Amino acid sequence: MSEQDIRIHKLSNGMTLVAEPMQEVSSAAFVFLVPLGVAYDPPNLTGASNVLAELIFRGAGDMDNRTLNDRLDGLGLHRHGGITSLFGSFGGALVADNLLEALKLYVDIITGPILSAEQFEACRELALQSLDSLEDDPRQKISLLVREKYLPYPFGRPAPGRREELQALTQQEVRKHWADRLTPAQTILAAAGKFDFEHLKQAVEEYFGSWSGPALEELEQLEQHNQVFHQPHDGAQVHVGVMYPSAAYRHEDYYAALAAAVVLSGGMGSRLFTEVREKRGLCYAVGVAHQVIGAYGAVQGYLGSTPERAQEALEVMLAELVKLADGITEDELERAKVGLRASLIMQGESTTARAIGCAGDYYHLGRVRSLQEIEENILKLTVDDVVNHARRFKPNDFTIVTIGPKELKVKS
Amino acid sequence: MSEQDIRIHKLSNGMTLVAEPMQEVSSAAFVFLVPLGVAYDPPNLTGASNVLAELIFRGAGDMDNRTLNDRLDGLGLHRHGGITSLFGSFGGALVADNLLEALKLYVDIITGPILSAEQFEACRELALQSLDSLEDDPRQKISLLVREKYLPYPFGRPAPGRREELQALTQQEVRKHWADRLTPAQTILAAAGKFDFEHLKQAVEEYFGSWSGPALEELEQLEQHNQVFHQPHDGAQVHVGVMYPSAAYRHEDYYAALAAAVVLSGGMGSRLFTEVREKRGLCYAVGVAHQVIGAYGAVQGYLGSTPERAQEALEVMLAELVKLADGITEDELERAKVGLRASLIMQGESTTARAIGCAGDYYHLGRVRSLQEIEENILKLTVDDVVNHARRFKPNDFTIVTIGPKELKVKS
Repeated sequence: MSEQDIRIHKLSNGMTLVAEPMQEVSSAAFVFLVPLGVAYDPPNLTGASNVLAELIFRGAGDMDNRTLNDRLDGLGLHRHGGITSLFGSFGGALVADNLLEALKLYVDIITGPILSAEQFEACRELALQSLDSLEDDPRQKISLLVREKYLPYPFGRPAPGRREELQALTQQEVRKHWADRLTPAQTILAAAGKFDFEHLKQAVEEYFGSWSGPALEELEQLEQHNQVFHQPHDGAQVHVGVMYPSAAYRHEDYYAALAAAVVLSGGMGSRLFTEVREKRGLCYAVGVAHQVIGAYGAVQGYLGSTPERAQEALEVMLAELVKLADGITEDELERAKVGLRASLIMQGESTTARAIGCAGDYYHLGRVRSLQEIEENILKLTVDDVVNHARRFKPNDFTIVTIGPKELKVKS
Repeated sequence: MSEQDIRIHKLSNGMTLVAEPMQEVSSAAFVFLVPLGVAYDPPNLTGASNVLAELIFRGAGDMDNRTLNDRLDGLGLHRHGGITSLFGSFGGALVADNLLEALKLYVDIITGPILSAEQFEACRELALQSLDSLEDDPRQKISLLVREKYLPYPFGRPAPGRREELQALTQQEVRKHWADRLTPAQTILAAAGKFDFEHLKQAVEEYFGSWSGPALEELEQLEQHNQVFHQPHDGAQVHVGVMYPSAAYRHEDYYAALAAAVVLSGGMGSRLFTEVREKRGLCYAVGVAHQVIGAYGAVQGYLGSTPERAQEALEVMLAELVKLADGITEDELERAKVGLRASLIMQGESTTARAIGCAGDYYHLGRVRSLQEIEENILKLTVDDVVNHARRFKPNDFTIVTIGPKELKVKS
């Protein structure tokens, strides 16, 4: 694993700059993590953060919508980001020479957006249309729905919003939401790529040093309860979302949980692929992924099958998830390690992946793990580590959500 | 743009190795382009290549399905690929140390797959289920449908296959298809990443040097005709696919065509985004992309809107596509150049993107362009180049396909 140079600088207003200079590349990537998650949306205004995340790009500082977007495009910025449960991310990748100019535009976008009445209406309208389009995308819809049922309120609120709540949203509420939530103390700016750190630090101090904002309260962590839910839908397939507890970032089982997910679903020879898809041909798409939402660790799974086969497919899938606690082989663990290590090495070669990795680590852990630290933790895993994890987190019941023409039976 | 070291080696059986050693990375990526496209599927057996592309991984050489997949997973290989109109691609990325071992497995996968009756049935069953799942994914479905209507037969045949034709497919037909099509003379192996070229060349000679196969005939290029088609679908949205001619790789307008697509659809300030999405709020998703299918260049567009707004959205979209021939500004061109250059630099940092780029270039051009050559061609574009291109390829009529609860009117 190649040497990394990870730097952290805290501004006096509480904002944190996390940076990984990479001398062998020509690009740079950055991401702002801001405390703007759907869990913090005002009560009964689910979707406010999502509308705001579009609206802040519709004019900022002395730039109207058109001018701002032309300037961003003029820097060759490839944007990414969006609203999750607990934070919003605004990021992008570009030629390294343009990094500081892009960050300068983000001062206005984040700390001085115009939030005009006209653009607010347009953004709300788009959010409603995006909700409509979800109706034709059941796979995306089930992913939101299973999180909503699994996570305690407000952690599982759906980021795209709810129709009647978006309709009740006003420009004033969105302005207030921006003023209440956008605050340096919980903002992380992560950057990775070709830049001089001292130069970047100076620029960020200059751009964001005078930004101030309110103090924020943390949400109370609540216990989650599993449940089974079906939503009728006149489609061709039954789409199933499954969710159950796993280890979050700070848990000693964290790396064992990653390996467990790979054994279940990491490659062509993984258990779910083999048992559900290949041996029995019960479905085209099946898989699980390890997730962390704040302090909640979870495994989230998906299954899409025909109405005729969905019941058997779900039963085989759940049986495999439970069976992990019976043991895994040395070979399975070895393959999982090699797969995780390969992902790690590829992440290390992408400025975008590194910027996101730095931001996520700092958000969850208050520090940035080197790739070598992650690698060491993966390589030292034993079969017992993974099996003990699977036993500790053995799913007794699952949250199971189905969308489709047929409701499935779930044994309790 | 950093210096590249691109090497090409032709084996005596006609197979071509195209390689770009990259010393600053730890990963490697490879892709086999094989003459296995849906256009070459046996008549009335559309989907044969797609089934074969899954089946060759279900046991090869002396390895059964399970053994083969465990070995691939054991190398930490992240696979990608699939069947397109004119070729199949089988690729992956992994830690560079494992590259040669992976390629050795692909000797059996490509030249000695088992193609058993049992696995054939399982793969055909999966292909049928994949077709079912398309019914719940109208956005993916419209993309296949617009190509089918736009491209002359057999170029536009849908890669996932057709239900009744998949049902008629037999193990014997798939075996014959493999024997007829998998041939070294039209196979390209591209690799990018950390390796020694001479070492790689030797290994590829050893692995693939004795492979032989039949000679293949080229498909006749036919003229394409535009048409309008509607498929009723009881969904929430109207999904529109649009397609019209553009410049293919060897055309002198090729780079102007890329820039034209960026002016229309490359960023937040691009014309389609501004006019259809932002100003009028007519839809959530709209965009176009430049495509090359063999000698056919095309622009393929997508629009998803509500039944109430879809008609106006389509009219505004088509008007913007036609209006490009009226001119673009210097600023628009400048932004397009910066955006294209940024994409290029990011591609240059990804072993997977470089392997795919090398393979695609060699397939279409018989050589590999350096990133610097591409950059120079982009940077020297003038407003006149782009406008003259837009005039030469000014769409008089479009192929327009809609799926949804409402048929749209198209002015002829």
